[in-house]
Amino acid sequence: MRDPDFTLSAGPTSATFRTLAALGSPITYHYDPAFIDAFRRTEGMVGELLRTSDEIILMQGEAVLGLEAAARSLVRPGTQVLNLVSGVFGKGMGYWLKDFGAELHELEVPYNESVDPGEVERYLDEHPEITLLTVVHSETPSGTLNDCARIGPIARAHGVVTLVDCVSSLGGIPFDADGWQLDVCIAGPQKCLGGPPGMSLMSVSEQAWAVIERNPAAPRASFLSLLDWREKWHAKGQFPYTPSVSDVHGVAAACEQALAEGLDNCIARHAAAAKACRAGVVQMGLQLWPRSEDITADCVTAIAVPAGLEHEQVRDHARRRYGVMLSSGQGAGNLVRIGHMGPTANGLYPEVGLMALGRTLADLGAAVRIGDGLEAALAVTSAQQVSSD
Amino acid sequence: MRDPDFTLSAGPTSATFRTLAALGSPITYHYDPAFIDAFRRTEGMVGELLRTSDEIILMQGEAVLGLEAAARSLVRPGTQVLNLVSGVFGKGMGYWLKDFGAELHELEVPYNESVDPGEVERYLDEHPEITLLTVVHSETPSGTLNDCARIGPIARAHGVVTLVDCVSSLGGIPFDADGWQLDVCIAGPQKCLGGPPGMSLMSVSEQAWAVIERNPAAPRASFLSLLDWREKWHAKGQFPYTPSVSDVHGVAAACEQALAEGLDNCIARHAAAAKACRAGVVQMGLQLWPRSEDITADCVTAIAVPAGLEHEQVRDHARRRYGVMLSSGQGAGNLVRIGHMGPTANGLYPEVGLMALGRTLADLGAAVRIGDGLEAALAVTSAQQVSSD
Amino acid sequence: MRDPDFTLSAGPTSATFRTLAALGSPITYHYDPAFIDAFRRTEGMVGELLRTSDEIILMQGEAVLGLEAAARSLVRPGTQVLNLVSGVFGKGMGYWLKDFGAELHELEVPYNESVDPGEVERYLDEHPEITLLTVVHSETPSGTLNDCARIGPIARAHGVVTLVDCVSSLGGIPFDADGWQLDVCIAGPQKCLGGPPGMSLMSVSEQAWAVIERNPAAPRASFLSLLDWREKWHAKGQFPYTPSVSDVHGVAAACEQALAEGLDNCIARHAAAAKACRAGVVQMGLQLWPRSEDITADCVTAIAVPAGLEHEQVRDHARRRYGVMLSSGQGAGNLVRIGHMGPTANGLYPEVGLMALGRTLADLGAAVRIGDGLEAALAVTSAQQVSSD
Amino acid sequence: MRDPDFTLSAGPTSATFRTLAALGSPITYHYDPAFIDAFRRTEGMVGELLRTSDEIILMQGEAVLGLEAAARSLVRPGTQVLNLVSGVFGKGMGYWLKDFGAELHELEVPYNESVDPGEVERYLDEHPEITLLTVVHSETPSGTLNDCARIGPIARAHGVVTLVDCVSSLGGIPFDADGWQLDVCIAGPQKCLGGPPGMSLMSVSEQAWAVIERNPAAPRASFLSLLDWREKWHAKGQFPYTPSVSDVHGVAAACEQALAEGLDNCIARHAAAAKACRAGVVQMGLQLWPRSEDITADCVTAIAVPAGLEHEQVRDHARRRYGVMLSSGQGAGNLVRIGHMGPTANGLYPEVGLMALGRTLADLGAAVRIGDGLEAALAVTSAQQVSSD
Repeated sequence: MRDPDFTLSAGPTSATFRTLAALGSPITYHYDPAFIDAFRRTEGMVGELLRTSDEIILMQGEAVLGLEAAARSLVRPGTQVLNLVSGVFGKGMGYWLKDFGAELHELEVPYNESVDPGEVERYLDEHPEITLLTVVHSETPSGTLNDCARIGPIARAHGVVTLVDCVSSLGGIPFDADGWQLDVCIAGPQKCLGGPPGMSLMSVSEQAWAVIERNPAAPRASFLSLLDWREKWHAKGQFPYTPSVSDVHGVAAACEQALAEGLDNCIARHAAAAKACRAGVVQMGLQLWPRSEDITADCVTAIAVPAGLEHEQVRDHARRRYGVMLSSGQGAGNLVRIGHMGPTANGLYPEVGLMALGRTLADLGAAVRIGDGLEAALAVTSAQQVSSD
Repeated sequence: MRDPDFTLSAGPTSATFRTLAALGSPITYHYDPAFIDAFRRTEGMVGELLRTSDEIILMQGEAVLGLEAAARSLVRPGTQVLNLVSGVFGKGMGYWLKDFGAELHELEVPYNESVDPGEVERYLDEHPEITLLTVVHSETPSGTLNDCARIGPIARAHGVVTLVDCVSSLGGIPFDADGWQLDVCIAGPQKCLGGPPGMSLMSVSEQAWAVIERNPAAPRASFLSLLDWREKWHAKGQFPYTPSVSDVHGVAAACEQALAEGLDNCIARHAAAAKACRAGVVQMGLQLWPRSEDITADCVTAIAVPAGLEHEQVRDHARRRYGVMLSSGQGAGNLVRIGHMGPTANGLYPEVGLMALGRTLADLGAAVRIGDGLEAALAVTSAQQVSSD
Repeated sequence: MRDPDFTLSAGPTSATFRTLAALGSPITYHYDPAFIDAFRRTEGMVGELLRTSDEIILMQGEAVLGLEAAARSLVRPGTQVLNLVSGVFGKGMGYWLKDFGAELHELEVPYNESVDPGEVERYLDEHPEITLLTVVHSETPSGTLNDCARIGPIARAHGVVTLVDCVSSLGGIPFDADGWQLDVCIAGPQKCLGGPPGMSLMSVSEQAWAVIERNPAAPRASFLSLLDWREKWHAKGQFPYTPSVSDVHGVAAACEQALAEGLDNCIARHAAAAKACRAGVVQMGLQLWPRSEDITADCVTAIAVPAGLEHEQVRDHARRRYGVMLSSGQGAGNLVRIGHMGPTANGLYPEVGLMALGRTLADLGAAVRIGDGLEAALAVTSAQQVSSD
Repeated sequence: MRDPDFTLSAGPTSATFRTLAALGSPITYHYDPAFIDAFRRTEGMVGELLRTSDEIILMQGEAVLGLEAAARSLVRPGTQVLNLVSGVFGKGMGYWLKDFGAELHELEVPYNESVDPGEVERYLDEHPEITLLTVVHSETPSGTLNDCARIGPIARAHGVVTLVDCVSSLGGIPFDADGWQLDVCIAGPQKCLGGPPGMSLMSVSEQAWAVIERNPAAPRASFLSLLDWREKWHAKGQFPYTPSVSDVHGVAAACEQALAEGLDNCIARHAAAAKACRAGVVQMGLQLWPRSEDITADCVTAIAVPAGLEHEQVRDHARRRYGVMLSSGQGAGNLVRIGHMGPTANGLYPEVGLMALGRTLADLGAAVRIGDGLEAALAVTSAQQVSSD
């Protein structure tokens, strides 16, 4: 089977030629001075993109590795944790926390809503024993956002360390690790940066390191260890294991490109693409999955599949008949998603997703006003003034 | 700092253009049917290269991940393990085993020797409580081999499961997982295959799965879990986490190339390159690190650094003055290594390493007969009949 | 300025990743045996795609070089030539023919029509002195076709040698050099094959060689010489000048891909894309440039620019605002063109061109029914059964 | 047949990864604003590298095209031309000049010598009717240089326009079009710049344009026309034909890299590589082809093939047995050449060429002191202080 014409998934997403060329650049030994330069430069760029001066850890494995490593590093049996659940990834974090022995508190909302920061504040007021809060900023499977700009300072004010899943936020949705007083942030390169899916991009605050270093259950001498990276790499220049040279080259290129474009412009592109897409969905007569547009994440538009159809069927038809790869909901519900990530958060890509979705639904017998939807989306795109130079 | 002209390290090593092009090929969504095809095809090729019909697991992280995952999966507190130590990686496995609660038995030899299979047999005869044997086939840091062709059947005859580190063997040194009756084998693509360093290529026998499935300490719902791959991916077609699409493309290309060339020819190339290199080392007046040529691994030639010099100094001078990246001994001793891996196990590459090493040593004041060494190496290369078409 | 998101021009067009990777593959010396193999293999594939067993010449320069070389080779002062003119390239050939001293006969029609083969037959009947006929199969600037399947046999029956510009036909529009009895055919790789714009792909029949060899005015010892290629390269294995190694690699990959897909499928893809596009144009309320759909070329859809607007303005707006590169008419009239070439003769690409064009025209004040046009195009695409695997 | 391990030919030579990646970058329409930017930027860089403020013409075809185009543009029947002949390319220019109707004067020396500028001055003094002088700066087939720094001002002082073949000089050998008062200079990207072989990089002085514009025989409306480029592209922004987009991208990258490194450093690298190579040749007991080291070109070392052997045999054996592509003499004599061009004018590449040549000669039965030669070359390399960062 040949590759799709368009990858408009929820990530891994399309990469720019510059990133692909970097992925295909010569492989060097990991202690080659040119590679060490590249690795350190990438750490610096990741910090800039996360807007933090905290220590940066680049783990070699997609963000699930970083999330597990961070949770294991911060939790020991008995740790009191407040886990916010508004989707699949928040829910999964809770399972891990219990596995690792945490005393689990959860604030859960339906998967098309967001957690109210006011509720978080009340809960922490009532539960001073809590020392760790875990939250997903952008719940990619359902296309919703939690308000970390408010949640971070609340946690900090309560002396609670935060572990933030911002996997699909980095480079496409406003995020400010230092400004929002967040402690451990885990991002992925394969989403809004348009990089390859093989690394966890992380920042760790001094508050978090203090917890980790005191934690006897924190992984040590392990692929899952944050401490190894700190003690071997940052302290002594020794990699705890061989980093994936080609992934580092690819991530470096994706970061350079985002910084050259300007992070603000990247974010504006994602916002514009998502706005056009939502307008198209609505005018096509379809339903956005999130309860309200206030809580939609700009990296992906989640759309309820019309009654009588199944998401897998929709996704597969769009891929096989129209060469467009969309995403399903990964268990969040009967929805499909059009990604707006990296190079596809731009120009007419949202409309391509809408064409594939609209015509697929029509082929499958659903009522859908394709032309109206496309006109609405194009009108939004026409009105945007985002430069993509 | 610009890239080196020649990467003759002990891996990651140079990749062919075909592998690099695959690494830079378009990134697709991991559930895209074209990617799923590529993933399954890669599993098949890895099995062919390991010469096994056992189940194949492709973990997304360099081989240290696979080794840790395998050891954690097989060991629970109290497991009786015989660990063979003839170098840095064997030694490190022992530390892990103790961490994971094993009752550790070790047969250790100096790091320029190999473990005697006769000793292994005697030890297992005397210790019927042992259920697991761990061994490094090719001890890359010191360039030596343990005789797994003999050790495997001994273990199997004693009902002992084997965990074999063949990270730097695959594709360059004879290896036969089924023929040698080995249970869990962990290889790396960034060595003799000339692939990217971002995956663990593993086979797991039914005997090993039986142990793992009964082991309550085996990782589950974790980046370190073998069981997740079996239960989610192999049983249900669900990836336990997003595989690194670009690494998979790169590994697929490296495997295809090896199979197209023919595994026997790959192995002959590595043998020829190593033989030429060893001849050059000896005629240059230098000392091979391994105690005897019988136990040298053909993927890398380890050379004792002459008295008065330090390995880092040698490696750095060769890189900065001659653009050739060699490797140090990673703690195995005061040695440097010339890799013969993938595309550099070929033609005049061994001689390039010898030129860089010889002239570096001369620059640093050592006595070395550069011309004699090169003539000796070239004479061996001239006499070889290995096709590299 | 960054690259466009979509190149839907009339060629050079987008290339596949496979072609791009080949263009970026290592450069070898032109007498390297691996390159010589590649060159000969490419000649063979070009013959297959042109459907001819005639001698193949691969000149190093875009098709204008091949056209000039062929015309200079066939014409001497006084040669009686019938030139068919239905567009810019036919007209240009006439200027050259006069420059080279031919006695020029022309059958000319407006640039939105095609030459009637019946007229050609009558003209040749009446002018037995004519020895050469020149014709453009696909007049790319105006998106029309001349009927070479009928013209070729007419010429052959009159003992007239044919020089056929099939630059934009090869790989996307039915063409059969031998079946249609054509003598000298010049194609371009940068059109329907989706290759790079740097070579002329030519076939020369024995009848044509006979004329050329007798012609004292035919270029010899020149970059424009066909004879040099025959006498030096084909006869003695000596390149008359250094071929462009990277272009050859790129063209080889594009040919391989077309043959692997199957030429019939390539042609069906182009037909389907063009049909969808034309339906969209009409339902958008716009006017196709060609007088009738019978004579439209499937490689490019030419659309009349609505009164009051200029083609350059339309093209530039689509590029700058929507990231879509369309083409103007290169002097054929006030028209814009949406290319369907190579990888863009597929899936939803025609609709992307329609979106860019439609919304651009709306932005510039024209009346256009965007939604209707897109629905019409999508309905055609939905109904097609062309596989692009 | 697979690619060679090392291309140490006399050009096309190996390209850097950066150049290869540019060759493989997306193909754009030639009127895309991003391409037009790239084209103009490349013109500027070529002027900088040629050290001239004259008008730059980038023709789409390897330098033989530019040389023919320039000669045809400057010559009409009866033009009095002094052609300097010290090798194959000088000789070939004379054949062209006669073909184009020139009154040909020649100063010819054996193909291992250079033309004495004093002789040139005397000849021009005696022949005031001469209006054009043609000279090859670096005679690549025989590895010798003519002294254009002296010849240029002599010609200018006599009112004689110069046509200079600096195909293999640019980027590796000192060259100064303005400082040396040269009129038409034609360089190739596939030599010391390490670019692709598909373009002619030319500068044309006002004196030369005056001659060309007055010349009725100068090509017009032709692939061979310089005037078309001036009148259509430079005056009106219209390409006379479609430039080869991928070649332009490749040449742009090669130029950027040379300018980023610094032209002086590039030249020093070539000088160092050639010096090491010559030392190796001499100490191996072989004979340099040029009569004296004073006139050797640093882009290529030409070596006399020992009596009893033939150059083709040597070249083919080195390629097939050792994977190293050397060049023969292209008719200049029984010689082989080791190129020092672009990325191979660096580090240990000259020694790789020496190993392949030395061992090949030994295999074929010649007496050669391989070890001595390599030690001598390495000693020179060790003593060099050229940075290649």
